[in-house]
Amino acid sequence: MTGRYLEDFAVGQTFHSARLQIDKERIKTFGAEFDPQPFHLDEEAARDTLFGGLAASGWHTAAVTMRLLVESDLKPAGGIVGAGFDELRWPQPVRPGDELRTESEVLEVRPSRSRPDQGLIKVRTTTLNQKNEAVQVIIANLVVRRRR
Amino acid sequence: MTGRYLEDFAVGQTFHSARLQIDKERIKTFGAEFDPQPFHLDEEAARDTLFGGLAASGWHTAAVTMRLLVESDLKPAGGIVGAGFDELRWPQPVRPGDELRTESEVLEVRPSRSRPDQGLIKVRTTTLNQKNEAVQVIIANLVVRRRR
Repeated sequence: MTGRYLEDFAVGQTFHSARLQIDKERIKTFGAEFDPQPFHLDEEAARDTLFGGLAASGWHTAAVTMRLLVESDLKPAGGIVGAGFDELRWPQPVRPGDELRTESEVLEVRPSRSRPDQGLIKVRTTTLNQKNEAVQVIIANLVVRRRR
Repeated sequence: MTGRYLEDFAVGQTFHSARLQIDKERIKTFGAEFDPQPFHLDEEAARDTLFGGLAASGWHTAAVTMRLLVESDLKPAGGIVGAGFDELRWPQPVRPGDELRTESEVLEVRPSRSRPDQGLIKVRTTTLNQKNEAVQVIIANLVVRRRR
């Protein structure tokens, strides 16, 4: 197995992803399956809502962020496994055609008290659009393997 | 517009959803698009991972939870719009064939300081499987309209 073990992570390290463009039709089909509300389904109906136009479901943004993160240079050995989150915010809506990427920073690294073969890293991942506006901020606690 | 306004919510109210079964093939296609890691893609490859078998991506669980919540009896006027989250946990993996439902409880109701036409409610939504085990717990701050 390749990838980074707990011992390879240090506070302050940063990791980056490629870019992924958000397709208008995928916003609507994701909305239809998982978040069927007017602002995620139809331009016309979205106009009179809080969003003032079609916007991706926050869960669509979160899912795309996960995809970008899996393919980023973070690469923990054993995969990206979330134990929980301290924070999840969507400061700006994601619009059709937006191009998203992630920036991640390690905030904490600590061995597990109960499991000597693993530890936790706390990572803040910011998802940015093509104007460098944050569209999602998430602080995750990830389970990472230790070297043996 | 129908639905509940801020004035219709009170601490301690509970809301419930219907049930939705998680399909094995959808676990894999969701994983392939958004969370391409062995434990979300393939039974065989999943066996030797932390999950010990195929499990839904946490983001798939979160998205299905949103669907259940939208169709539950919570129904805020203006829709379910998340301003942020205090907590998001996945205490148990979701397996193929699991039947999920949600239980939501209102923890806080407060008018907005800056926007006289809206307020925030804090809602804990627990997603349960057919054995009544919690598979997701999320505490969300939702933007809700006030009556005018």
